[in-house]
Amino acid sequence: MGQIDQAVTRQRTDQGVRIDFQTDPARYRHWQLKVDGDIATLVMDVDEKSALFEGYDLKLNSYDLGVDIELADAIERLRFEHPGVRVLVLRSAKPRVFSAGANIRMLAGASHAHKVNFCKFTNETRNGIEDLSENSGIKSICAINGTAAGGGYELALATDYIMLVDDGAAAVSLPELPLLAVLPGTGGLTRVADKRRVRRDHADVFCTTEEGVKGKRAVEWRLVDAVVPGSKFDEAIAARAKEFAAQSGRATSASGVKLTPLMREFTDGGVEYRTLAVEFDRAARIATILVRGPAAPPPAAAEAMVALGAEFWPLKFARELDDVILHIRLNELDVAAIVFKSSGDPNEVLAYDRFLDTNAQHWLVREIRLLWKRVLKRVDLTSRSLVTLIEPGSCFAGTLAELPLASDRSYMLIGGRNGDNRPPAAIALADANFGPYPMANGLTRLASRFLAAPGDLERAKGERGKLIDAETAQRLGLVTFALDDIDWDDEVRVFLEERASFSPDALTGMEANLRFAGPETMESKIFARLTAWQNWIFQRPNAIGEDGALKRYGTGHKPAFDTRRV
Amino acid sequence: MGQIDQAVTRQRTDQGVRIDFQTDPARYRHWQLKVDGDIATLVMDVDEKSALFEGYDLKLNSYDLGVDIELADAIERLRFEHPGVRVLVLRSAKPRVFSAGANIRMLAGASHAHKVNFCKFTNETRNGIEDLSENSGIKSICAINGTAAGGGYELALATDYIMLVDDGAAAVSLPELPLLAVLPGTGGLTRVADKRRVRRDHADVFCTTEEGVKGKRAVEWRLVDAVVPGSKFDEAIAARAKEFAAQSGRATSASGVKLTPLMREFTDGGVEYRTLAVEFDRAARIATILVRGPAAPPPAAAEAMVALGAEFWPLKFARELDDVILHIRLNELDVAAIVFKSSGDPNEVLAYDRFLDTNAQHWLVREIRLLWKRVLKRVDLTSRSLVTLIEPGSCFAGTLAELPLASDRSYMLIGGRNGDNRPPAAIALADANFGPYPMANGLTRLASRFLAAPGDLERAKGERGKLIDAETAQRLGLVTFALDDIDWDDEVRVFLEERASFSPDALTGMEANLRFAGPETMESKIFARLTAWQNWIFQRPNAIGEDGALKRYGTGHKPAFDTRRV
Repeated sequence: MGQIDQAVTRQRTDQGVRIDFQTDPARYRHWQLKVDGDIATLVMDVDEKSALFEGYDLKLNSYDLGVDIELADAIERLRFEHPGVRVLVLRSAKPRVFSAGANIRMLAGASHAHKVNFCKFTNETRNGIEDLSENSGIKSICAINGTAAGGGYELALATDYIMLVDDGAAAVSLPELPLLAVLPGTGGLTRVADKRRVRRDHADVFCTTEEGVKGKRAVEWRLVDAVVPGSKFDEAIAARAKEFAAQSGRATSASGVKLTPLMREFTDGGVEYRTLAVEFDRAARIATILVRGPAAPPPAAAEAMVALGAEFWPLKFARELDDVILHIRLNELDVAAIVFKSSGDPNEVLAYDRFLDTNAQHWLVREIRLLWKRVLKRVDLTSRSLVTLIEPGSCFAGTLAELPLASDRSYMLIGGRNGDNRPPAAIALADANFGPYPMANGLTRLASRFLAAPGDLERAKGERGKLIDAETAQRLGLVTFALDDIDWDDEVRVFLEERASFSPDALTGMEANLRFAGPETMESKIFARLTAWQNWIFQRPNAIGEDGALKRYGTGHKPAFDTRRV
Repeated sequence: MGQIDQAVTRQRTDQGVRIDFQTDPARYRHWQLKVDGDIATLVMDVDEKSALFEGYDLKLNSYDLGVDIELADAIERLRFEHPGVRVLVLRSAKPRVFSAGANIRMLAGASHAHKVNFCKFTNETRNGIEDLSENSGIKSICAINGTAAGGGYELALATDYIMLVDDGAAAVSLPELPLLAVLPGTGGLTRVADKRRVRRDHADVFCTTEEGVKGKRAVEWRLVDAVVPGSKFDEAIAARAKEFAAQSGRATSASGVKLTPLMREFTDGGVEYRTLAVEFDRAARIATILVRGPAAPPPAAAEAMVALGAEFWPLKFARELDDVILHIRLNELDVAAIVFKSSGDPNEVLAYDRFLDTNAQHWLVREIRLLWKRVLKRVDLTSRSLVTLIEPGSCFAGTLAELPLASDRSYMLIGGRNGDNRPPAAIALADANFGPYPMANGLTRLASRFLAAPGDLERAKGERGKLIDAETAQRLGLVTFALDDIDWDDEVRVFLEERASFSPDALTGMEANLRFAGPETMESKIFARLTAWQNWIFQRPNAIGEDGALKRYGTGHKPAFDTRRV
């Protein structure tokens, strides 16, 4: 398709370059993270010449995935490196422009897969900003000094409090539909309707008005929380930040934990991390993630955990799992299925969960559990078939048991294997499986699994802390199939071959429907209703065809639409 | 695209043929409706040579829109013509086959617009079966005597109780994904996950297993409610039907009301009904529906209403509105916006609502209100921009006020017009706006509208029964814009021109997101998550391309997939 697709292809072929989700503030090109006491300010100052791909400039604080990777990194660092921060202020360094949103030429040139995965990641980052407020005591303020268009306004919508300068020109807008024939794809429609509860006819007017809404009407229609004269803007932001800081329950005295660079070795066949590895069988289109249980018992006390910092196994593993999932999503598009395996001592994993339970009120433990929650949600939302193979020597216990529970299917071996003297496969549940890791639907994976039979959920609860063998696990409904050694190889092989033979698109749609039974939340609405409609539109000639709005934007020619309503 | 697209084009050009949603049992080609005491049986016996379009035969009880139009008609008649019915049994007249689901060759040849609208209508029909059970005291049983595949099983899923014959061969299945690279598009995935609460890994296995699941496992996995040996099948169905009938609160003594044929005249420029008319401005891509208020006051008592039967204004109008909406959806694809106007006395409309309130417990009133609920939901789900123009002489009161509330925008004229001596525009609310017509999200249109401000909902409640002028209506938040005569023409014209200039696809996606704020239900999940993903898949080359699964089905050649997961 466009230059971006070629760029990705070239990167993949070279094997030297790839989309990397690891960065740090010293390398940021688009953001400045400033911390002043309990107030952090993230200043958006996109370097227009530092786009992720060739073929477009990031003018007017427009963004691509590279800009958003830095934003996501900064927010993680706020959590871990700056535990004293109680308020986040988002600002722009550009005069009279907050952000022009996702870069249009990038969108016009990107492959469908890149567009979809770009939107998914940016959505996850914005959900992370809301999680900051809801669970970490960091309220956020968006200070809009001029134009906040499209994704620029959607970023504002993820904050708790939107302040718009009142200068007769500054406005918020979602011009995607009139300008580009696509939807605001980063939660905009859902947050307008469900978070800010804008009346539907006002929302209709707003989303079809290219120039947006400004001044008093923006407040009346609930699109922003306050309009402030330019002369009083800084003062008003500071006052509001101070007020939010005073309301926060976040610790102010703790010193943070440095998120040191992940140690990774990329080879042609996979990536080697410290707590896990991934192997690609490209012919079979399978990525196998081998999870390694902790090599040492948990520290005796919370202080020792802080001293370990990013080396503390639960934190290290969560960060590495996050990175590998994103790597597969963006750089290994041909992977049909992700297979989770593990090696280690389930009792050691349970010991770490007990340590986290014991220290649940510690700020670092809280952040680690919240990180785990977000990483597991990222797994749920990954459009690859997910399968866990539970074999002798594995350690799917407690937090790690969320991986088979997040999988579309799990297979567990009954008994041992000939010539293998490791103990038979066992899984184990812990308190961690019954609360701290809700899915996007607001329920734990076990509660979602046992929607039909709450009694089965209670029964599983009674098994916490025990090593559960394959046949019991199947009886309890915790695994899909318990198989003996004779059947194992064939069953697993046939399943994985079958998965690779199916239509990738139909699998994506099916999994998106079966994984999220039960209630819907704003978050699940964004990833279901909004995303699915946007993906549809991203396939329609009216948007992406040669005469479509995305292709014609900026050419001086109007798009030509197929006028049939579908 | 295929032959169907050509067929539709040919029909449109001839102006003589069109997809007609009106039928009656004497004309059925595919179903037999038998009523025996309080048990109704609908026997599916599809005539394979009576397909709606050319190019395919309806083998093995496979269906197209024509088959489903008869099913929808039969269910409406059960409600109105057979008030003594308390149980509905769905059966097949074909040996060892219940239904093969939606006809694959029909799907392969159909235009995208036809596929989408076909799925929408079949979904609405299945929701109607569930509404029968939930609100009309008619529980339904599906008796599966053999294969129930795809849409065949999805039809079963809409019933309360699924009985499967246990003969070693009969099975339920959703083979769409492995066979056709599409989703089960008629609620299957949602009902498996959310109605029957099948465990997600079981659902994954089921939905990827072409041959489906039979016997004991079908019960264990909650896919059916009972398996019964063939020799006892009829007896078991009868016993279950009798049991359900005994539990029903539905009246058994009332005699029904005949749903007489709608009187319609089709011209090139529109359709003339009795209680409304539609005019097409094809250059502007606008359909204007002119609603006529009742010409006579309501009868004095319920008996007189029964005597009026299908001539009773609320029933007649609901049926005609339903028909015209379906006509626009399927036969007038180029219409960008539906404009509602009305003429009549708002006090007369309120009088009808009071009559219905007074007789709320009467079976016929209950069915009329339920019909209204379903028709208004059909309006909500129609992918055309909806706008109401409230002008002097209009009667958007009570039930009819749901039309502006269902619209994406409403415009109301302040005061009168020069040379027009009709009274200034007024709208009025009634109890009917606060309960009996919930949207798919489970909330009334007013509650959805005022999500942000429940106080506004209470305030509106206080205005019931009053004639509300334009400025007051705007202040109360009931209309989008109140305009005076000077601005009216320009504002409305510019809006409608703008709407016709936007991408039809982007409008569909935007409206689908903004119309349904608040909670999600199984129904809204079907029309959002499931439908949007299916529409996406219906656009993907892996399904509809020359090498895609739908095109290659039955050719002896396997589909060739683009293997990238998106």
